[in-house]
Amino acid sequence: MANQDLIKSLSISSPSKIVLLVIDGLGGLPHPKTGKTELETAKTPNLDKLAAGGICGLSDPISPGITPGSAPGHLALFGYDPVSCNIGRGALEAVGVDFDLRPGDVAVRGNFCTVDKEGRVTDRRAGRIPTEKCAELCRLLDGQVIDNVRIFVQPVIDYRFIAVFRGKGLVPALNDTDSQHEGVPPLAVKALSLEAERTAKIANQFIAKAKTILAKQQPANMVLLRGFSERPNFPSMNEIYKLKPAAIAAYPMYRGLARLVGMEVLETGSKIKDEFKTLTQSFAKYDFIFMHIKAADSAGEDGDFERKVAVIEEVDSYLPQLTKLQPDVIMVTGDHSTPAILKAHSWHPVPVLLSSKWCRPDKVSQFGESACVSGGLGRISATQIMPLAMANALKLNKFGA
Amino acid sequence: MANQDLIKSLSISSPSKIVLLVIDGLGGLPHPKTGKTELETAKTPNLDKLAAGGICGLSDPISPGITPGSAPGHLALFGYDPVSCNIGRGALEAVGVDFDLRPGDVAVRGNFCTVDKEGRVTDRRAGRIPTEKCAELCRLLDGQVIDNVRIFVQPVIDYRFIAVFRGKGLVPALNDTDSQHEGVPPLAVKALSLEAERTAKIANQFIAKAKTILAKQQPANMVLLRGFSERPNFPSMNEIYKLKPAAIAAYPMYRGLARLVGMEVLETGSKIKDEFKTLTQSFAKYDFIFMHIKAADSAGEDGDFERKVAVIEEVDSYLPQLTKLQPDVIMVTGDHSTPAILKAHSWHPVPVLLSSKWCRPDKVSQFGESACVSGGLGRISATQIMPLAMANALKLNKFGA
Repeated sequence: MANQDLIKSLSISSPSKIVLLVIDGLGGLPHPKTGKTELETAKTPNLDKLAAGGICGLSDPISPGITPGSAPGHLALFGYDPVSCNIGRGALEAVGVDFDLRPGDVAVRGNFCTVDKEGRVTDRRAGRIPTEKCAELCRLLDGQVIDNVRIFVQPVIDYRFIAVFRGKGLVPALNDTDSQHEGVPPLAVKALSLEAERTAKIANQFIAKAKTILAKQQPANMVLLRGFSERPNFPSMNEIYKLKPAAIAAYPMYRGLARLVGMEVLETGSKIKDEFKTLTQSFAKYDFIFMHIKAADSAGEDGDFERKVAVIEEVDSYLPQLTKLQPDVIMVTGDHSTPAILKAHSWHPVPVLLSSKWCRPDKVSQFGESACVSGGLGRISATQIMPLAMANALKLNKFGA
Repeated sequence: MANQDLIKSLSISSPSKIVLLVIDGLGGLPHPKTGKTELETAKTPNLDKLAAGGICGLSDPISPGITPGSAPGHLALFGYDPVSCNIGRGALEAVGVDFDLRPGDVAVRGNFCTVDKEGRVTDRRAGRIPTEKCAELCRLLDGQVIDNVRIFVQPVIDYRFIAVFRGKGLVPALNDTDSQHEGVPPLAVKALSLEAERTAKIANQFIAKAKTILAKQQPANMVLLRGFSERPNFPSMNEIYKLKPAAIAAYPMYRGLARLVGMEVLETGSKIKDEFKTLTQSFAKYDFIFMHIKAADSAGEDGDFERKVAVIEEVDSYLPQLTKLQPDVIMVTGDHSTPAILKAHSWHPVPVLLSSKWCRPDKVSQFGESACVSGGLGRISATQIMPLAMANALKLNKFGA
């Protein structure tokens, strides 16, 4: 029995409440001058107080050495096996712009690109056209119907868009048309299985039409498609945990991920204080709230150590609004590490903090990577975070007689 | 997807370099008088310096409580599941004497033994005849052809030899002829599957001929065979990691194991200093070098605490030759523990040290078992060592979007 089936068989509904606070890209690496990570540099009296009364450790989003993307990082935190539950690029992109992706839809990520007179790609990103231009071009392509299949085209950002094919009998087993090289024409869509042949034909017709429609547009006179995929069919968090879960996230990608696992996505603002305000307003209505803070990851990816420190300090300053609500369980962690000195997601394990009446406190009194090494949780898989939260909320029955 | 498949899907080739230094049997147990293990007793200023700037932990070659042989211990370090990738005794012995074992060959380990007039085994090891005598007898048996199958017979050490059957349609599903008891005749070879019946017949004919040829030899007048097996078919390290890997090992067994996973085996001398010299000479040509130091394990198996300490100190003294080369990642560990007070391989987890620009340093400043307990790597599976090395060498792409 997979672990998720075990949890499902033991979970019970109860009035107790869990808050999972995810500071995206939380884990870091030491600043060369101070030897302290972003989290260790930040002044975090409220997180430290929570750590002192709780239990800490380090978690691996996937397994040691593996750097996760945002989607697998979050799926692991929600208790889903991040490798077997991997989401295709097209579906993720669609979900990430709040597109209502339905079972049976085939989604693909698109680039506007530039081709020369012979049809060879000269710029895979069409000079990185701005989002407004992208939206304008998407409107030209949107709404076509080919062989009873309706095609939605929506802008993402810059030169990137999504195309979603909706109709009967669509199969996403298709290759990318983006060869990842310039100087050669886009590839034709080919079916990777017999069942996908009609879908390939429709996709090629769509591309041919797009080429005609865009012919006089410069520099974005053609499209490249990659990552044909469909909406994954995960069991919902309600099915597994018997929770009534909600998500507070400012960024569309995380709202989309939360929706995929059956969370209710709450309206909120774009700032950290907005999210905490939404938490206070909505706390009574749910027994599980996932809160997502994006800005720490963005600062890490920009290599901005100080800004990442500032984001963490800002989160800490609002923490009393969370603790005042007295949830039965508070978990604070990240979906992966994003060390500012690496300017990228990384494989380093992520600090995790569990605060509950029923946890067995350890000696960690400062929430930081070094301290968490000797925390009472030890080094765990991120997929174990939800079972621990559920247990501490007294929402899991005993296994066996 | 098994972890090795995941790594394979993420690995990329790059100029960065990894050195895996394996001190065989590195882990130990405290000396009753000092309370310090062999590694803790040894003066290792260079390893300690590496530990202080790096990250340490303990690794389980297989799983807690399991004592590994040398083959599974090393396969785990190379990132192969040591249980599903277990190698048959005959194949391992053949590979261990540098025999060019090919796909389709069936190898078996042999003992020269003594039988009485009634054919009952009176000494399973023929009085432990010396290797020279063994080699002489092997020459008598070598080179036979039975039913188009050629049989190679080569000495290993003392009374032990290998027999390798080469021809078409051979199947190694055969029982041992060594009953492990004296006072009874050797067992006949029996096929454990229908497909193996011809191979059983050939093996029995070989044994009958050996009995005739050896009839007047004393005390080695018969053979016992066990561990019929074939060359395992592992994906190479190049396939999995996209590395150009080389091995520096003085002992044939480790050279053979390295060859099985596709490493280039470098010529080297029998001393530790020879191996470090080979490292310096060959470093430029490879992006992964496995260095194997045998003497620590031998000292442990002999119960010679002081000699094991001396071996570790000798390795430490040459370490600057390695660090001077500035590989991007250095991993120092063992394939298992061999505590001198146990005089045998053991199940105790093995100290592991990772040094790289991108590791998250911990507070360990002395490379030893007790210090490693609170190291930042925590307690890992030995199969995670290669993924960690690859990650720290920036040779693994991100998983998922």
